[in-house]
Order: sequence, then C-alpha cells, then structure tokens
Amino acid sequence: MKKIGVLVLAFWSFLCFAQEKEQKMKPQETEVWEPKVPVVTPGINNLPPSDAIVLFNGSDLKQWVNAKDGKEADWIINNDGSMTVKNKSGNIKTKQNFGSIQLHIEWKSPKRLEGSGQHRANSGVFLQGLYEIQVLDNNGNNTYVNGQAGSVYKQSVPLVHAAVETGEWNTYDIIYHQPEFDLGGNVTQQATVTVLFNGILVQDHFKIIGPTKFIGYPKYEKHGKGPLILQDHQDNSRVSYRNIWLREL
Amino acid sequence: MKKIGVLVLAFWSFLCFAQEKEQKMKPQETEVWEPKVPVVTPGINNLPPSDAIVLFNGSDLKQWVNAKDGKEADWIINNDGSMTVKNKSGNIKTKQNFGSIQLHIEWKSPKRLEGSGQHRANSGVFLQGLYEIQVLDNNGNNTYVNGQAGSVYKQSVPLVHAAVETGEWNTYDIIYHQPEFDLGGNVTQQATVTVLFNGILVQDHFKIIGPTKFIGYPKYEKHGKGPLILQDHQDNSRVSYRNIWLREL
Amino acid sequence: MKKIGVLVLAFWSFLCFAQEKEQKMKPQETEVWEPKVPVVTPGINNLPPSDAIVLFNGSDLKQWVNAKDGKEADWIINNDGSMTVKNKSGNIKTKQNFGSIQLHIEWKSPKRLEGSGQHRANSGVFLQGLYEIQVLDNNGNNTYVNGQAGSVYKQSVPLVHAAVETGEWNTYDIIYHQPEFDLGGNVTQQATVTVLFNGILVQDHFKIIGPTKFIGYPKYEKHGKGPLILQDHQDNSRVSYRNIWLREL
Amino acid sequence: MKKIGVLVLAFWSFLCFAQEKEQKMKPQETEVWEPKVPVVTPGINNLPPSDAIVLFNGSDLKQWVNAKDGKEADWIINNDGSMTVKNKSGNIKTKQNFGSIQLHIEWKSPKRLEGSGQHRANSGVFLQGLYEIQVLDNNGNNTYVNGQAGSVYKQSVPLVHAAVETGEWNTYDIIYHQPEFDLGGNVTQQATVTVLFNGILVQDHFKIIGPTKFIGYPKYEKHGKGPLILQDHQDNSRVSYRNIWLREL
Repeated sequence: MKKIGVLVLAFWSFLCFAQEKEQKMKPQETEVWEPKVPVVTPGINNLPPSDAIVLFNGSDLKQWVNAKDGKEADWIINNDGSMTVKNKSGNIKTKQNFGSIQLHIEWKSPKRLEGSGQHRANSGVFLQGLYEIQVLDNNGNNTYVNGQAGSVYKQSVPLVHAAVETGEWNTYDIIYHQPEFDLGGNVTQQATVTVLFNGILVQDHFKIIGPTKFIGYPKYEKHGKGPLILQDHQDNSRVSYRNIWLREL
Repeated sequence: MKKIGVLVLAFWSFLCFAQEKEQKMKPQETEVWEPKVPVVTPGINNLPPSDAIVLFNGSDLKQWVNAKDGKEADWIINNDGSMTVKNKSGNIKTKQNFGSIQLHIEWKSPKRLEGSGQHRANSGVFLQGLYEIQVLDNNGNNTYVNGQAGSVYKQSVPLVHAAVETGEWNTYDIIYHQPEFDLGGNVTQQATVTVLFNGILVQDHFKIIGPTKFIGYPKYEKHGKGPLILQDHQDNSRVSYRNIWLREL
Repeated sequence: MKKIGVLVLAFWSFLCFAQEKEQKMKPQETEVWEPKVPVVTPGINNLPPSDAIVLFNGSDLKQWVNAKDGKEADWIINNDGSMTVKNKSGNIKTKQNFGSIQLHIEWKSPKRLEGSGQHRANSGVFLQGLYEIQVLDNNGNNTYVNGQAGSVYKQSVPLVHAAVETGEWNTYDIIYHQPEFDLGGNVTQQATVTVLFNGILVQDHFKIIGPTKFIGYPKYEKHGKGPLILQDHQDNSRVSYRNIWLREL
Repeated sequence: MKKIGVLVLAFWSFLCFAQEKEQKMKPQETEVWEPKVPVVTPGINNLPPSDAIVLFNGSDLKQWVNAKDGKEADWIINNDGSMTVKNKSGNIKTKQNFGSIQLHIEWKSPKRLEGSGQHRANSGVFLQGLYEIQVLDNNGNNTYVNGQAGSVYKQSVPLVHAAVETGEWNTYDIIYHQPEFDLGGNVTQQATVTVLFNGILVQDHFKIIGPTKFIGYPKYEKHGKGPLILQDHQDNSRVSYRNIWLREL
C-alpha cells in the first residue's frame, strides 16, 4: 500500500518534470513555413477547379479513343453537353495515361429502361483501365451487391445505395491511389479507392485486391500509368456521361 | 539455352493449365447477394442526405452547448440560416458524442477583415473534440503552412489552398475515422482524415498523430466517442457556419 | 470461347516477351559486393562469440548494481562460475544500458524446491529493465500459462514448455528489438522478442504490448536505452545464473 | 500561465483517478490458465527435441529423393553419421512437405578446397524448395555479400560472417514462416526468416521478397507446402550435412 503510494508520487514527479519541459517548448517549434502551398481556384457546382485536366468539354471526344483499336471514339455527343454510349461501338479510353487521381464524373441512366439486373443501364469507370467502379441503374433493380452501382466490381459492396432518380444526373467523386510494385512485380502497396456517390461515402479507402474481373479471383500484374476507360456493356445500356475532370495526385 | 527453352514451355503449360482452371470457374462464384445495401436519398446542393444527423438547422443552437461549462451555447444566429462565433463566449460543442463520421460543414470569413496570420478569421472544427481541422482566412494571408485553412493543425499541411473569395461560403467534406486503443491505452490504429475543401482534396487519408496542440508534440490518450467542437479563437474572428450535418460510419 | 482463346494467346505473347526480357538480365545485376560483412568468431558450447559483451565472467558482479539504489550488487558468487539470487537483496541491473540485443543467458532452479505456482524458483530477465521474460520452475508445477517459464510475463504464453530437469542448467537465447517512439511519445513500433528455450522456439517474434505488469494492462511510455535486470522475487527463489552475454543489434 | 497551472492540476487529478482504478484491478484479471502448454524435452548439444521430425538419422536417405525426378536420393553416406553431396547427382528433397518450421541443420566444407567465389563448397538449404539460405565456404573467400554463407540468396546480406574454421561443422538454426496468399494468388504476407549461424544472429526476421533467383528479380507465385531441398551445385562442392531436424510451427 505504502509502496504504491510512493510509486504514484514518483510517477507524478516524473510527469511534473515532463510537463515542465513541455511548457518550455515554444509554439514556434512546431510551425512549418515552407514550402508554400499551391493555390487552386475551386469550380462551382462541381465544375472543374483551376488545376484540373478536363476530359470532356461537352462538345467532342478528342481526348478519347476506342479502347480496343485506338481508333476514333465513336460514342454519341448530345446537345446538352453530355455523351452517350453507342451500343457495340466498344469501350473508350483517354489518350492520356494517369496514376493516382482525384476524379469527378457524372452519369445518368436513360429514363425509359429495358432489362434488369446487370442488364439495366450498365457501364463502368475503369481506373487505370483495370479497376472498375460500377455504373448501373439499381433503383428498384436487384443484382449482386458487389456488382451494384458504386461497388468496386466484385470486390467491395458500397456502404449505401445513393443514386438519384432514374434519368437524373449522378456524380462520382473518386480518390484513387495506384498500386505500387517492386522490381520483380510483387505488389508492395495495394491500390486504394474512396468514392462519394452524390456526395455520400460509398467506398471508404478500400484496398483494391487486383484488376476487377467478371470470372475468377483478382490478381495484380505490375503496370505503370493507365488510361481512364468508360465501358460499353454491349447491351444497349444508353448510359450518358458529362463533366469529367481529374486532378493528378 | 535449350534448357531455358524447355523451361519456358513448361511454364506455359502450367499457365495454360491455370488458365483452364480459371475458365472453369463460373461468374456466379464471385457474386455476393446478401446482406442488401441500405438506400439513402442524397440531398441536392450539399444539403443533408436522408440518413444524416443535422447539427444545425439554421434557426437555433439546441444541439450545442458551451464546450467548457456545458451551459447554453451563446453564439449569434443570423437571418440567413447561419451562425457566427460570438467573441469570447467560448467554444461550442455538440450535445451528442460521435465516433467515425462523414461530416459536411460550411464556413465563411467576414468580408471586412482585421488582423493577419493566425489572427484573421481563425476558428476550427475539432473532430471528437480533439483533432482540429483548421478554419482560417488565408487569402493573401501568410501563416505557417501546417496551420493554414484545411490543415490538420500543426500536423498535416493541406495539399493545396482551395478557398473561395473572402466573404463567400466554403465547404469542408470530411471523412474521419476515430483512433483505436487497446486495454492498456496504447493506440493500435491512428485516427485518419480525408478533407475535401470546396470539392478539392486537401487531406488524403492522413494518419493523425495525436490531439492537435498549440505547444509541443501530439500524444494519444485513450478516449471514447466525443463531441464536435467549433472554436471561438477569442480574437474577434467573426467566422460563420451553416449547413452542418454528419453521417456515422 | 474463341474470344478467350485469343486472349490466352495474347497473354502468352506478353509472357513470352517478359520471359525474353528476363533472359536478357545478367546474373551480375543482382549481386551486391559492398559493404563487406564483419567477421565474428563463434564460441563453442554457447560461450560468447568474439563480438559479445560479456556481462558475467563467473567471478564477480562488477558489471552489475542493485537495481533500486545503484549500490553494489549483493548476490551470491558460487565456485562453479555462477551466481545466485540473494533473497531480499533486491533486483540487480547492468551498469550499461542497451537497445536491441541478442542475449544468451543460462539459469537453473535449486534441486530441492520449496513453494509452488509463482513461488517456486521465480526470477526474471527484464529486457531494458521493463519487459520480463519469465524464469520459473514449471516442472510439474502448475501456474497461469502466461506466467510460466518462457512467457513474456502476462502477455504471451510460450509455444511449448522446454525446460530441462529441475536443478539442471537451462538456456535462453533471445532476439530483442526495442520499441520506437515518435516525438510526442506515441509508440510507432512495438518491441519484438524471439526466445529459444534450450534451443526450442517458445516466443516467435512476439510484439510486446508494453512494460510487463503484475496488475493491470500494459501501456508504453517513451524511453531510451535501458539496463538488463535480473529479478529477486523476494521469496527465497535461489535461482542461479551463468554465462550471460549479449550482442548489440 | 495560471491557466496552464490549472490544466496540469486537472491532468493530475485525472491521472490520480486512473491510477486508483488500476489499483482496483486484481492480479488475477490478467492471468490466463487455459489451454495448457505442450511439454517438450529438449535435446542436448543440438540433438533433436522430443517433438522434432528427424530428417536424417545418419545412416540412410529414406526421407529424401532426387529433387528432379523423385527417384532415389543418390548422395554419399559417411561413417561419421553425415552425408555428402555426390557431384552432379542432383539436388535432393524431403519426401514430406512442410509449411512454417524451426529447422536445425549442420554442414561443413571439405578441408581441402578447390575453386573460389561461388565455386568453393557451394550448396544451399531451400525452404519449401524455393527460398535458399546459402551454404558456402567464405573463409578468406570473397564473393558478392548477398551470396555469401548465411545470406538469403541475392536478397539479404547476413549481419555478420560467423563460420567456424573450414572443415569444421557449422550449424544453422532457422525460424521460417511461409508466405500467405489470397484466392487470386496475391501474396498477402511475405515469408519471414531468422537464421542463427553457429548461434549468432545473421538473418533477423527478414521478409523474403520471393523465390531466390540466380538471374532477375524475385516474384512470388502462390504455393502450398513444399519440401526441404539441399543443393548439388554441380561443381564438386563436396559439402556434408548432418543432424537435420525440424519442428512444424
């Protein structure tokens, strides 16, 4: 008993000393002044900030090519500044390759829908051409939950379903970090992804397991920068996109 | 030489076999159907989604108390649905305590500013009452970069400065995960924070080092849930807040 | 079907290319020639290697002091080159402080034992004076398993019990890495310990949770180098030690 | 100033309270009594403990086969209870496959040596048939340091060189944990290895990068349990082995 009392006192003395030492520190000792932070002018209503790479200006597909053959991207340009998947014309990809990015993209389903499950306004955003964030109309449309809108396809179920009404514009705000590999090709740091679906968190720093696959389990293969790919699901999905920009991280 | 040729062939055969096995898997084997994902209706223009806890409705401070004495929160309610720090009335905190959250909060500086450096529209958002995301008018206002707007105060410099013009409304969208502790009080998982400043990433899954401090180095002390605290910096900052909501993660 | 065939072929071509590139590497590209590796002459029969710090030469306690008051270490020196705990004379500690070490130490219980459970030849090796590897006669002696010989006291149960017969010499070969702390005192890397008990693995790179405690849960407090402490359990344990040496890592 | 004083007092009160609470805990609350720990009888002079799998009894190679064709192991059995590599007879492997193990193995170079660098008593211990701990006579024999005795071949330089005189018996005590893989074949936990070379630490919980390779960078491929392989370096190395046992972890 007495022994513990002494110990507590000793401990207090020690703390007292630590506290005193702390008090002798000056606020300036934990200030960092350099380097200065770059200034960016934010856009309004989700429009691109001043440092963004704008991938679709609403009037042409000059930044995109067919993902398979590298020829002209043959999707439909609409009057309202959006583009729509042209059925069976194939996926499109950006000419430019990217690593880690913050991506903003907006998409909508057609108002009059055909099909169900995975065949209802199915498209997808492939980060580095390999890792798909699912685009799908899930309003009243049942499918496997790791394949619904906002999922990392067949890897991570979204926390919630946060779509607007079918036919209205949805937004994805995505923070993506590319995987890191060693010289032999082993993945040393998995890719990560955070997704806000109409401003609501649906993927929360998820560690991607490998390229998203329709069949089988994912496995990383070493790669460098890659394009953004938008999917033509080849079943007349008629999904539209607009206001696509990203910032390299 | 010949030896390697055989090896390559053997390797190919192996791969061929692996490929075949993969082909025998069915797409259904990697589908997950349960549990179903909750449905949330998003708000428009950053307004609260259907599952949010609204912390400020624009007309009263019933969800808040003085952070020091627990008495009535004595800040100013404005006609435009915002509130403003009342100088030297003290910090305010939510009555409710929180763990990991997605937080939306909007703030603005007064148009006519006094002071400079840390004395120019200084306030702060304290996650769990301990971890401060800095609020400050840094437009043409020089200060230490780990103390400017969007910083984790004295721990993490924001990636960019992304404020709107002084006197306009800024938004912070914050994804915060609370720290985890073991029975003895050692931190076993640091808190993390991601901050979008007017939609632009400024904190990128930063691992918080401990409670943010004006003097000295941060050190974790075990704690449970805690309130959201808004700071009265006691130098007539006149910072205003509005549209505050969060979702528990 | 056909499609997959093409894919497989494409994949093979890719692999073929990768294989070719690999073949172009030379064995020399993965050789490291500098710096040269220090040469150490091993001891025989567990005797100290040429680079060891010998903590007990068998004839005096000049490297040790009383752990409490820093006065002369008052344990018993035996004719056979060993020392024995002198009951109630207190723990002894090395004059020198250490960080990460490889430690060899030998201990034995008296042949004629008194007491049971924790009161039977109880002593302990405290790494950096804080983290105890238990010394106890557990031959036919039941106690809590996280407090038996070879345990990290009250933290990690030994994988097996590997003692020799009571009264014979046991050896502990210990690989210990000190914990790392940040400026504020948070532990950033837990201490680790591997223990071979008479050549048999009983602790396998265990991550120590904090200073080992009789009462309560462990909590790290920042510290630098510390002494090796041997315990006088104050219940007439009569444990003997010999052949103590370590190598700094 | 005054303010900080009060804070310190408050902090002390808090600690006092914490201390009191701790004191109310009983020692029994941190005791673990079940399950009981298995008892193992240690061997003397590095001989196998009671729970070991003995891989070489000194008189035959019944536990081994040729690593290439699975036929009889054609190495030389000596009168002194050891075996010696038979030049160009090929590597030998255990019939049994293993995962994580503690391995004891002894080896010696011939007294009269030919060759230099990698051509002087070169052999190797391949954990799971894939990860080589180098065996080589490096006494006064220069080679690349990540290929000398005690190295993880071309991956990890030994901390020191700790061989006995050429022609005498060396011991390796190895703690090895196999790598873990996910369903797709990504490595989720690297293999680790600790090596004591004549009782001296030379590999300290090294995280293996992939199968050890003569040419190129290591890359993991998913695998299950595997045999222990001893190498015939095909250059008349005449390395001998004896007293080989392991314990599965």
